[in-house]
Amino acid sequence: IASRLPNVGTTIFTVMSRLAAEQGALNLSQGFPDYSAPPLLYDLVSKHMRAGENQYAPMAGVLSLREAIAEKVEALYGARYDPEHEITVTAGGTQAIYTAVTCLVRPGDEVILFEPAYDSYAPSIVLNGGTVVRARLEFPDYRPDWEAVRRLVTPRTRAIIVNTPHNPSGTTWTETDLRTLARLVDGTDIVVIADEVYEHIVFDGLRHESCARLPELAARSFVISSFGKTYHVTGWKVGYVLAPRELMTEFRKAHQFIVFTVNTPVQLAFAEYLRDASRYLELGAFYQRKRDLFRSGLAASRLRPLPCTGTYFQLVSYAGLTDETDVAFAERLTREIGVASIPVAPFYEEPPGDPVLRFCFAKNDDTLLRACERLARV
Amino acid sequence: IASRLPNVGTTIFTVMSRLAAEQGALNLSQGFPDYSAPPLLYDLVSKHMRAGENQYAPMAGVLSLREAIAEKVEALYGARYDPEHEITVTAGGTQAIYTAVTCLVRPGDEVILFEPAYDSYAPSIVLNGGTVVRARLEFPDYRPDWEAVRRLVTPRTRAIIVNTPHNPSGTTWTETDLRTLARLVDGTDIVVIADEVYEHIVFDGLRHESCARLPELAARSFVISSFGKTYHVTGWKVGYVLAPRELMTEFRKAHQFIVFTVNTPVQLAFAEYLRDASRYLELGAFYQRKRDLFRSGLAASRLRPLPCTGTYFQLVSYAGLTDETDVAFAERLTREIGVASIPVAPFYEEPPGDPVLRFCFAKNDDTLLRACERLARV
Ligand SMILES: CSCCC(=O)C(=O)O
Ligand SMILES: CSCCC(=O)C(=O)O
Repeated sequence: IASRLPNVGTTIFTVMSRLAAEQGALNLSQGFPDYSAPPLLYDLVSKHMRAGENQYAPMAGVLSLREAIAEKVEALYGARYDPEHEITVTAGGTQAIYTAVTCLVRPGDEVILFEPAYDSYAPSIVLNGGTVVRARLEFPDYRPDWEAVRRLVTPRTRAIIVNTPHNPSGTTWTETDLRTLARLVDGTDIVVIADEVYEHIVFDGLRHESCARLPELAARSFVISSFGKTYHVTGWKVGYVLAPRELMTEFRKAHQFIVFTVNTPVQLAFAEYLRDASRYLELGAFYQRKRDLFRSGLAASRLRPLPCTGTYFQLVSYAGLTDETDVAFAERLTREIGVASIPVAPFYEEPPGDPVLRFCFAKNDDTLLRACERLARV
Repeated sequence: IASRLPNVGTTIFTVMSRLAAEQGALNLSQGFPDYSAPPLLYDLVSKHMRAGENQYAPMAGVLSLREAIAEKVEALYGARYDPEHEITVTAGGTQAIYTAVTCLVRPGDEVILFEPAYDSYAPSIVLNGGTVVRARLEFPDYRPDWEAVRRLVTPRTRAIIVNTPHNPSGTTWTETDLRTLARLVDGTDIVVIADEVYEHIVFDGLRHESCARLPELAARSFVISSFGKTYHVTGWKVGYVLAPRELMTEFRKAHQFIVFTVNTPVQLAFAEYLRDASRYLELGAFYQRKRDLFRSGLAASRLRPLPCTGTYFQLVSYAGLTDETDVAFAERLTREIGVASIPVAPFYEEPPGDPVLRFCFAKNDDTLLRACERLARV
């Protein structure tokens, strides 16, 4: 059969995690923690399994979970979403993004994304017959160039995918960014798909600037989050999407035929677990400490951390150290030094060749300290 | 925004389950059991959660689960699938079907399906820009008319979706059907998408005729199954797909961006649970007893069960009883008699108006007996 995605091979995440395992390297590549949730969360899942709550959940998700999400979103962002019509539980952030693109994009439609970009955005657009239009976040500060974005908008622009806090750069958008985005789409029928799966991992007293905060933006946005990132269970695959009713009606039509529903006992467990707000409110401080530990550990090395205000990823510049590409350098560090990272080139269609690697610091302190010791040898 | 699925509304499953709840009716509509799995399965999930196995599974699924599936499929169907390259774990049967269609169908491609059809097939084709081509399974025996199917094949036919045991009719295909299908696609590049989620629910000493059994068919088929149906946990949303390597490579490219991975502790639990073959080998006898209980209970009523050789669905004819449409009759039975069923019209693009309702007999004996008592009053 003729491939619909001829250029997709094994992802860099799989490649680097596999290489790390082969080499017995410390794995700071793929984004997942090497710790897990507290036992209470498992007890809650077990309780609901044993209570026999194992059949199909409602298509849009368990109502008590949608209600808990609505409360959280209102408390944090002052935004009101109706659990009945404006919140849907998904099988993770990736499925939410794919489904949002599917319900919007027809062949010939254009979708703007920002590079470097998470690897699922472009294929989601391509599989739905859309055309990928790329804006650049430039090394080393990875700030959006809004004038350049404006020039990319055409009458065919159907959606724009934004991501803050941003993977892989660890940058976060400001309120001004959101207001600029709102002005940019004003008067068009462009829909915003906001990947905010790292919403609770923001540092240095900054607040997460969610698209849900600005009413004029929220009115045309799918806002996506993920419990995997927030509760240290990336393998559970549960997330959610917020959207105004008109958009959500279309989202659910696609969702229903893409996965139909999401694991029931896990949803019921999160419905209870979410009620204790400290669990997500403390996440920023938790990761800020790890970020600082990792960054100060790097001071003894010739690698230079770039600014990082969110996510559990730290970009590191190796400018002046070697002329190797980031892919070659990441492989060599894994083999020779025993620390696996992610090169940034695979986040681009046409990589600019910047000398940067991404390290995931969602790891035990001990792992981070050992990684820094090894990196000091570079 | 302009809907990509303008004709999709609330599904009949949601409508009837909601009506059943409102009316306090016995719910024999949507297909799920009112019992659940034995505690051992929950203990296995808990064990893996507590062992900290909560991060991303490999994209294709946990290897030990794929190995267990390979063993099962070889034992049952004499078919060898390589766990490394030819088996992928999915977030349920629906996601497997959607993903198979996505990796195959380009705008303008035709896909043949058999009506009455499970409600996700046609939208999966439409969302991927394909054209739905409908073959009929005619009341009251719902047998495929292979000559008619042959006339529907064109150079644009990209795939054919088959489903045995068949929802909603409860019929099963014979070995001759599979051989006829194999001849029909021979010499074309048509891919078969085989929805076999009820593979273990076959009655009367028949065996399940899986597309995996015939090498010439298996070589061009996605064969799809679901643990939810087999292990009484429809809400857990785990299934799998078998396909030759070339097809699976394309499937995984789409899978990776549609959901990426499936719940890790649940996969690990099934990897162990599957090893005891009695769990699925006894399922046919378990449901045959329920089928017989329900059918003999109906003898006291004026409703006439059609032949049922598989699935947990029983079609019932009300010919001669009333001129109401099946939709109207199903609603009235729910309101007046207190038994909810599913009308068959929604399984068609253009309903033929046959006087049949579908009852799900995956219910406790007590529920089935009470339903029959009530139905005797019709
Ligand atoms: C596709 S791997 C998932 C982890 C992740 O999001 C990342 O490492 O960027
Ligand atoms: C889409 S509802 C799921 C249950 C089912 O498969 C059915 O009732 O046919």
